[in-house]
Amino acid sequence: MSDLVAFGETMLRLSPPGNDRLESADRFEVQAGGAESNVAVAAQRTGIDATWISKVPETPLGRRVVNELRSYGIETDVVWSHRGRQGTYYLEHGGDPRGTNAIYDRENTAVATAEAREFDVEPIREARVFFTSGITPALSPTLRETTANLLKAARQGDTTTAFDVNYRRKLWSPDEAQNTLTKLFPGIDVLVIAARDARDVLGFEGDPRQLAHQLGSQFDFTTVVVTRGERGAIAWHDGVVHDQEAYETDTADPIGTGDAFTGAFIARRLEGADVPTALEYAAAAAALKRTIPGDVALVTREEIDAVVKEGGQEISR
Amino acid sequence: MSDLVAFGETMLRLSPPGNDRLESADRFEVQAGGAESNVAVAAQRTGIDATWISKVPETPLGRRVVNELRSYGIETDVVWSHRGRQGTYYLEHGGDPRGTNAIYDRENTAVATAEAREFDVEPIREARVFFTSGITPALSPTLRETTANLLKAARQGDTTTAFDVNYRRKLWSPDEAQNTLTKLFPGIDVLVIAARDARDVLGFEGDPRQLAHQLGSQFDFTTVVVTRGERGAIAWHDGVVHDQEAYETDTADPIGTGDAFTGAFIARRLEGADVPTALEYAAAAAALKRTIPGDVALVTREEIDAVVKEGGQEISR
Amino acid sequence: MSDLVAFGETMLRLSPPGNDRLESADRFEVQAGGAESNVAVAAQRTGIDATWISKVPETPLGRRVVNELRSYGIETDVVWSHRGRQGTYYLEHGGDPRGTNAIYDRENTAVATAEAREFDVEPIREARVFFTSGITPALSPTLRETTANLLKAARQGDTTTAFDVNYRRKLWSPDEAQNTLTKLFPGIDVLVIAARDARDVLGFEGDPRQLAHQLGSQFDFTTVVVTRGERGAIAWHDGVVHDQEAYETDTADPIGTGDAFTGAFIARRLEGADVPTALEYAAAAAALKRTIPGDVALVTREEIDAVVKEGGQEISR
Amino acid sequence: MSDLVAFGETMLRLSPPGNDRLESADRFEVQAGGAESNVAVAAQRTGIDATWISKVPETPLGRRVVNELRSYGIETDVVWSHRGRQGTYYLEHGGDPRGTNAIYDRENTAVATAEAREFDVEPIREARVFFTSGITPALSPTLRETTANLLKAARQGDTTTAFDVNYRRKLWSPDEAQNTLTKLFPGIDVLVIAARDARDVLGFEGDPRQLAHQLGSQFDFTTVVVTRGERGAIAWHDGVVHDQEAYETDTADPIGTGDAFTGAFIARRLEGADVPTALEYAAAAAALKRTIPGDVALVTREEIDAVVKEGGQEISR
Amino acid sequence: MSDLVAFGETMLRLSPPGNDRLESADRFEVQAGGAESNVAVAAQRTGIDATWISKVPETPLGRRVVNELRSYGIETDVVWSHRGRQGTYYLEHGGDPRGTNAIYDRENTAVATAEAREFDVEPIREARVFFTSGITPALSPTLRETTANLLKAARQGDTTTAFDVNYRRKLWSPDEAQNTLTKLFPGIDVLVIAARDARDVLGFEGDPRQLAHQLGSQFDFTTVVVTRGERGAIAWHDGVVHDQEAYETDTADPIGTGDAFTGAFIARRLEGADVPTALEYAAAAAALKRTIPGDVALVTREEIDAVVKEGGQEISR
Amino acid sequence: MSDLVAFGETMLRLSPPGNDRLESADRFEVQAGGAESNVAVAAQRTGIDATWISKVPETPLGRRVVNELRSYGIETDVVWSHRGRQGTYYLEHGGDPRGTNAIYDRENTAVATAEAREFDVEPIREARVFFTSGITPALSPTLRETTANLLKAARQGDTTTAFDVNYRRKLWSPDEAQNTLTKLFPGIDVLVIAARDARDVLGFEGDPRQLAHQLGSQFDFTTVVVTRGERGAIAWHDGVVHDQEAYETDTADPIGTGDAFTGAFIARRLEGADVPTALEYAAAAAALKRTIPGDVALVTREEIDAVVKEGGQEISR
Repeated sequence: MSDLVAFGETMLRLSPPGNDRLESADRFEVQAGGAESNVAVAAQRTGIDATWISKVPETPLGRRVVNELRSYGIETDVVWSHRGRQGTYYLEHGGDPRGTNAIYDRENTAVATAEAREFDVEPIREARVFFTSGITPALSPTLRETTANLLKAARQGDTTTAFDVNYRRKLWSPDEAQNTLTKLFPGIDVLVIAARDARDVLGFEGDPRQLAHQLGSQFDFTTVVVTRGERGAIAWHDGVVHDQEAYETDTADPIGTGDAFTGAFIARRLEGADVPTALEYAAAAAALKRTIPGDVALVTREEIDAVVKEGGQEISR
Repeated sequence: MSDLVAFGETMLRLSPPGNDRLESADRFEVQAGGAESNVAVAAQRTGIDATWISKVPETPLGRRVVNELRSYGIETDVVWSHRGRQGTYYLEHGGDPRGTNAIYDRENTAVATAEAREFDVEPIREARVFFTSGITPALSPTLRETTANLLKAARQGDTTTAFDVNYRRKLWSPDEAQNTLTKLFPGIDVLVIAARDARDVLGFEGDPRQLAHQLGSQFDFTTVVVTRGERGAIAWHDGVVHDQEAYETDTADPIGTGDAFTGAFIARRLEGADVPTALEYAAAAAALKRTIPGDVALVTREEIDAVVKEGGQEISR
Repeated sequence: MSDLVAFGETMLRLSPPGNDRLESADRFEVQAGGAESNVAVAAQRTGIDATWISKVPETPLGRRVVNELRSYGIETDVVWSHRGRQGTYYLEHGGDPRGTNAIYDRENTAVATAEAREFDVEPIREARVFFTSGITPALSPTLRETTANLLKAARQGDTTTAFDVNYRRKLWSPDEAQNTLTKLFPGIDVLVIAARDARDVLGFEGDPRQLAHQLGSQFDFTTVVVTRGERGAIAWHDGVVHDQEAYETDTADPIGTGDAFTGAFIARRLEGADVPTALEYAAAAAALKRTIPGDVALVTREEIDAVVKEGGQEISR
Repeated sequence: MSDLVAFGETMLRLSPPGNDRLESADRFEVQAGGAESNVAVAAQRTGIDATWISKVPETPLGRRVVNELRSYGIETDVVWSHRGRQGTYYLEHGGDPRGTNAIYDRENTAVATAEAREFDVEPIREARVFFTSGITPALSPTLRETTANLLKAARQGDTTTAFDVNYRRKLWSPDEAQNTLTKLFPGIDVLVIAARDARDVLGFEGDPRQLAHQLGSQFDFTTVVVTRGERGAIAWHDGVVHDQEAYETDTADPIGTGDAFTGAFIARRLEGADVPTALEYAAAAAALKRTIPGDVALVTREEIDAVVKEGGQEISR
Repeated sequence: MSDLVAFGETMLRLSPPGNDRLESADRFEVQAGGAESNVAVAAQRTGIDATWISKVPETPLGRRVVNELRSYGIETDVVWSHRGRQGTYYLEHGGDPRGTNAIYDRENTAVATAEAREFDVEPIREARVFFTSGITPALSPTLRETTANLLKAARQGDTTTAFDVNYRRKLWSPDEAQNTLTKLFPGIDVLVIAARDARDVLGFEGDPRQLAHQLGSQFDFTTVVVTRGERGAIAWHDGVVHDQEAYETDTADPIGTGDAFTGAFIARRLEGADVPTALEYAAAAAALKRTIPGDVALVTREEIDAVVKEGGQEISR
Repeated sequence: MSDLVAFGETMLRLSPPGNDRLESADRFEVQAGGAESNVAVAAQRTGIDATWISKVPETPLGRRVVNELRSYGIETDVVWSHRGRQGTYYLEHGGDPRGTNAIYDRENTAVATAEAREFDVEPIREARVFFTSGITPALSPTLRETTANLLKAARQGDTTTAFDVNYRRKLWSPDEAQNTLTKLFPGIDVLVIAARDARDVLGFEGDPRQLAHQLGSQFDFTTVVVTRGERGAIAWHDGVVHDQEAYETDTADPIGTGDAFTGAFIARRLEGADVPTALEYAAAAAALKRTIPGDVALVTREEIDAVVKEGGQEISR
């Protein structure tokens, strides 16, 4: 029985080595990556037990994704499907001014057909937190419903629900997203949202502190975390707003930074840490993530502790 | 204006290095591969001018496929599409008894929506040979129609039509295939077919010579080539059956062997070679292909000549 | 609760790519490998639930080994140690006449200090089979005792005990091995032994059928399997001797062949297969293993079934 | 018929991965690179049709160079030679203070024997721009003459001539260069020159604006572009001097920056852009180039547009 | 007969590529690295003849270390041992805030059993400098004695003794280190020490200048160099203190920076350079080292000269 | 002072990984390779001391070659040149029927200008054997003379001269070769020649035994070894002809097989072995070489002994 159950799609991530271009690459590095499993791994590595649930094709590719996630220490509880693709995404790292470019190839996936009745909801009801993100309902009408149903099941079981808005313009329009998400919000306890998404998708205005405050007031969240990329994060909780700066970091891979943040935040909160402390650990996990190639924050609690305490180390020998 | 125009899907081929398993691979080698472009390249390298036509997504992945084909020396004339996926396939080399396993991921591709009216048929009408394979109509109902229409256009232009049955059980059932293909046969001049497919898909019986004879008699082909893998090939032409043994080869990659055979056969026939000579070159190109990693017969005419003349060389220095 | 619990050391395996020499290599491929976890993985992949138990240093290297084993689908239940090394071995593949050379670097390991009282014996008592191999008692006097104690615990719990002699001349002399192993034999139900070891270590004589018979008669085993490398295996059970030929295979990596054999044999026996059937599956798993780089038989049950039924496939597409 | 025809040597570029040293490297990454083909590719990718002409040995190495250039989308029209080497260069990336070190190995090349009469001058006369650089006449006395003759042919055809001084001290002395280049200048319309070369090779003095002005006045150029590395570029045209800053960039590979600049500048000018606009696009293409490993600006027009408009993007998903 | 003889352990260094984590790496890059051989190579490359002496297992791993050191141009004179391990270390590069992490695996090594009587002391007595570091006595009680004995032998031969404190907290405690080192100090002429170690291990206080002065006064050193990482170094000699700033550098690998510094300092001093000049070259060698992957300063004297004179170069072609 | 001094060119060998084609490769593996240094290394590894002398450009490429040869344990004594290229060769492994293809790029090399007076002949005169091959005089008229002069110097010093004909049709015609070589033969004691070269270059006829006999009789050799590839070798000595079969081997790289043979033959002869024994060791070294990627026989004497005694081993652990 895990502390955290996360539901969502995990893709096969295919990226050319270094700064190579997709258009000319002749090798891809292969990894598993998906917002929700990234959060589960970060939470597990920070100190709690996490399970990822999903629907996965019964193919070498589907098994490869599950194998890799298991290697990170989380439990996996998947519905194996004989229909539907394994989602993939192609990722090219460019640096400035080329940027990082993700090309999704996630149509007709097995997970897009996942219905709530295919999952055993007991583990969700017995978990302390259920997590999913705004990517899940963006993937298919079926998943829109499934997301709502699993959130409902979690609430029935006294499980805290946490949700990262994670708006992806390559998946849906701001209008569609706003429409769907605001219907889900009443079932959500902890909301994580990028300041940019609060503005561009939900239509709020103001600085991050104001965004957090408005979101917290307008909906019935217990906690709202507004992330600001390299400028850190803001959390609203019990009417109080807390500030957290980002740690400086040598970025090897920016993908998954927010997921590391959210996973560590949830884990520390479940361990009883207050919001400012949880934010500090979340920022440390996020900083460490950026030094690690791949989607996943393959960190240790000791490393997170070290960053929180000393801001990291140069050479340890 | 090319001698040969080939129409079909070219996929991004993703394969783990060496004998590694898809289920645990963390790198994929990336290549472009598709039966029809493989044939075009083999024909070009044997000595004629070839063009590949297709419909391709306007993405880095689609461009990557076109770039690679251009590098092999053929012309590419593609309809760029803003919808539809780039088809991919995952390939695992196992050796005996694991075998070589191809996992297709070619649903919802751009090419599956290609209609005849999107292509300029002039180059097809002006070509000396138009080639496609049984894979193309297997990909979508639209392509079934397009295949028929392009074959018709070729015939109208006095262009010889060549067709490789290339049955793929992962794409359609024998019944569907038989049904579709026999309708296309009247529009085809040169048929290439594996002995196994002649039996299992078309329901013929007998040894390869008998198969060739029956196919040649029952339909209106000018030439029928029946391939038998490591045991060589049989060609029926003008009522005469010709035998060709396969050359011995150290196999680095068996994929594309038949395409190399067909491309070289067409090329030599266009150059005026008689059927036995064309078969000999086809077998040599096929043997060389098997020594080359990837789908494509990146050979030179000199190398094919050398195999035909001397059976290859050990060390050249 | 697993069907099979396996106890032993799993090393970090470091090998130069391809045929490169250790003496000049500048890259090593890294894998986890150990006889007992190899058996556990093969058994799991064949169809039963398996757990590997061991003692592992709490370092990135120790975690790496555990992560990888988890990725193969087995459970891991390890005592994390703050003392002792992670065992490694260097492996060079040479082909004939250079051969395959393993250099062990497994002194002062954490596992060498593992005592029976450090493990929870409940899972062993509740398992249907407990497995370890002759490598384990060869590693340290402590492990000699622990092996005996865990076998005893298994017997107390009505758990079948299975044991592969796995003599390694780089670890101990034939005399030491014979002395230790014959003391363990009374606690063992199923013995697996190479014909060569039966002769050179235990001092038996005769052909493999005679060796199996003598071993079965002299000690109180229920089953004795005598392996003969490329010439297959012999099993003695209930006084009857069964023969199994090896399948032909393209060898990518011979290491772990015997472990794949043993794991599949145990798994099929637990599933209720009779000895000849289990031998057939064992031989198929062993043949597939040889096509896979690394220690581990990362196969599927479908693949094993296919080899048993059809002897494998050439190209599947 | 291409808008731009570029003439020059393209070498096989051999570079150790990452920051590895030539002196100890055991792998080289292989690419095609040469100032003139780099310019052709950058121009093509920015939006015009470009052809590269040269003389290349009829060997796998020569074909490899041509294949790669074709993959970038440009046309290639080469004289295949049965004599002369394929030029190569070894490139080591060091970062500060080691720097980037190019070791030329371009003696006795096929291209060094290229005479104007070996080329079909029709495409040059029909092109809108003919481009070559100061590297070409530095390679051999024959090429000195050929450069002059091809420039003359272009002028006869009403083709604009563009020329990048590209002084390479490892090829010739400043005196030789000055002597040769100033004789070519009367046949050149658009001159690109590094400020450093204007001073050290041609002996001009002053700041880049003054250099541009003096060059424009003293010779009969229509346009003079003076590049200043990380400090941008200056263009003199119709007596007016325009300034362009460089964009900030994460440099993966500085080689080819100037060629990307020149190619994009020419392309935009041909499309009718005024000089300041062309400079802006040139600077954007140059900045993007630096993020891409290899000699070549494998960019898209959309990416250049995005840099000009928004200075690039961080993560696109 | 070498100018410099260095004694110490050289390990096999195993590091994941790029920023990959040990915990998930499936490839390691392999190199030889050890403080004393690093110093020998840096000295040789700066311009003197150097020999490394040690005790090495007669295995492919031991030979691999010796082979690599020979390739760098130094002489190797080793006692081949049939017992004891080859020391290894695992190195993970993380960048900020993860840092660089070295995991030593150097228990039970061959070198740990090396006794002075196993070495031919003639070359030490005839050398101009004998060098070892504080790592050596930290490895075993035997090496503690051997270090003292070899220093004594050097002194008997009128050979200058140089010693880098190189405190490693993963090998011994500050107390053990202080205790051992201060007993060795009377036999040492030139001491190199990090400011941090002077404080934390030896218990001195003050800024680096004060540390150098105190060390020089309290013990009988002729020269004391206090290194301060990115802030340069201080040398005390003949009662005078000299300051040297560090050069700016793009760091590819920080390991071995201090060894490059020390090796170049010793080499220049042996060539007769005064202390400020030697410091300048040492700083230049250290800066160049940081651009080179691996432990070793594979530089040329010309490159060091160039940094001293011009601070390096951007592109040389 | 070495037992064997070998003189010749060592090239940088550039080869695509596995079976990849030069025409499409984007990585080359880099190694040092040359017949004479290959022989020196094989001799050293078999048990004698060997030195390679040559003329090498003072560039990173030249140093790289020397570094690598040093790593194999031989001494190197080179004339560093500021003019002339480092020779390279491109090697593609194809398997049957594609074969192995070497493309030489060795024009204008530094070594081609090497004159006898540039070398210190003392080491040659003091060596027990001086070795060079027919490749050396094929490289330039200067080297033709130098070869003669160094052979003469050796003879003056009572040094045995050994020579491998090594005819390379890509370097010179049979006529040129015959003309030059027969002039050198009077200065040669031990001749190694492929049966094919004895026929095609020297114009002898008959089976290998007859060839050996005729060569031995016609010129004044003490020993003639006629090699026959996979069919072993024949040695004529003191009028007696000895036969040696080749050992079976899994070939990873056939290049350098003959050099390994010759090096081991010379080494064993110098150690006092009789001709049949030396042939046996030579064949074993040659078989081992074929299992090793690269030009060089990086074997140990123990491995050669094992092949001679037992024909090699399967798995050693």
